[in-house]
Amino acid sequence: MDFQDYFPIWDKLNTIQQNKMLGSLMTRNVHKGTMIHSGSADCTGLLLIDSGQLRAYILSDTGREITLYRLFDRDICLFSASCMLRSIQFEVTIEAEKDTRLWIIPTEIYKSIMEESTAVANYTNELMAARFSDVMWLIEQIMWKSLDKRVAAFLLEEASIEGTATLKLTHETIANHLGSHREVITRMLRYFQNEGMVRLSRKTVEITDARKLKQLCDE
Amino acid sequence: MDFQDYFPIWDKLNTIQQNKMLGSLMTRNVHKGTMIHSGSADCTGLLLIDSGQLRAYILSDTGREITLYRLFDRDICLFSASCMLRSIQFEVTIEAEKDTRLWIIPTEIYKSIMEESTAVANYTNELMAARFSDVMWLIEQIMWKSLDKRVAAFLLEEASIEGTATLKLTHETIANHLGSHREVITRMLRYFQNEGMVRLSRKTVEITDARKLKQLCDE
Repeated sequence: MDFQDYFPIWDKLNTIQQNKMLGSLMTRNVHKGTMIHSGSADCTGLLLIDSGQLRAYILSDTGREITLYRLFDRDICLFSASCMLRSIQFEVTIEAEKDTRLWIIPTEIYKSIMEESTAVANYTNELMAARFSDVMWLIEQIMWKSLDKRVAAFLLEEASIEGTATLKLTHETIANHLGSHREVITRMLRYFQNEGMVRLSRKTVEITDARKLKQLCDE
Repeated sequence: MDFQDYFPIWDKLNTIQQNKMLGSLMTRNVHKGTMIHSGSADCTGLLLIDSGQLRAYILSDTGREITLYRLFDRDICLFSASCMLRSIQFEVTIEAEKDTRLWIIPTEIYKSIMEESTAVANYTNELMAARFSDVMWLIEQIMWKSLDKRVAAFLLEEASIEGTATLKLTHETIANHLGSHREVITRMLRYFQNEGMVRLSRKTVEITDARKLKQLCDE
């Protein structure tokens, strides 16, 4: 597929804007585990995912992490170009969770088009509102949901993304997604195992009773 | 002061847009404690605060609260018009924390101007980015800061807003701001009192050692 087919409001750009965008576009293939964007240090540009998976997270001073949201095929990553919005006062880290092929729209090009096109400006509004909704969902999870439900929901989400019940995940990785500690996750997973919901082996969590896990989430 | 002096990008509207906005404007005086906007049920419009103070918060199913941010003179409240953005999938409640005088710009009027004016669309982007930054700050507080530091920071913020060290606040109110429970806050405040940082009496928290409270925050 071409960029034109993936960029959602391509038809709303005029020919000059289309050429400007196409002319400045870069494609990049990144391996799983690559840090694509780190805080406010760099202003990488907007990322449009052709195929793959990205994770946006924040880091504490002491190295703790929590996942804000994930991006999949056809998603656009706005915060890798956060320098173009003066009012963004936070730092997001973005890494490839899978081998990813993406297009980069340079920040200054996107910004210049956004300043003259209401379609692009309003599309950017919708993009930010979508990410804002992800983060509000996360706050509600952190504030009102107990950790057992959050771990159960995370395992089910992973199984759905990966299309398998056998998840290659360390306890550390789960802790980093959920903003928790490895020891706490280990204890929780052992409890799940005792309840027959998962089977644990080295670097693997196998879901053995998805229905029970789902019930726990919905309680 | 007139609306024209308060609306930050007034000069970037053309005469038609200016007249459209002025012609549809409503002014409202709300008393302290008034619920101005509740979830997605109503789409009140954008609020521009002439004078007063608003609080935006979320509510759990069981009635727990946590404050997302506060708005003061000259601030604009975007989420009372969240229905104009398709991608906003969360519900915010907005109440007056003080007697407040405000202007309401009807949602459909603002939206129609935003769809034709890049200045308004990009200004809306900055507004959303500013609130997004508030919420990201909140997540960092919840995730990485212990509650004693958060209570200390809240008391100092209140003292700064109110211009007094004698705060009219119930423990319940503090709990609702911080997403905590009354009992937990009571225990924390008693600890602060034993440490000589505050003096507690009925519905009042008096800060007696602001420096020590500040030290606790910065540790």
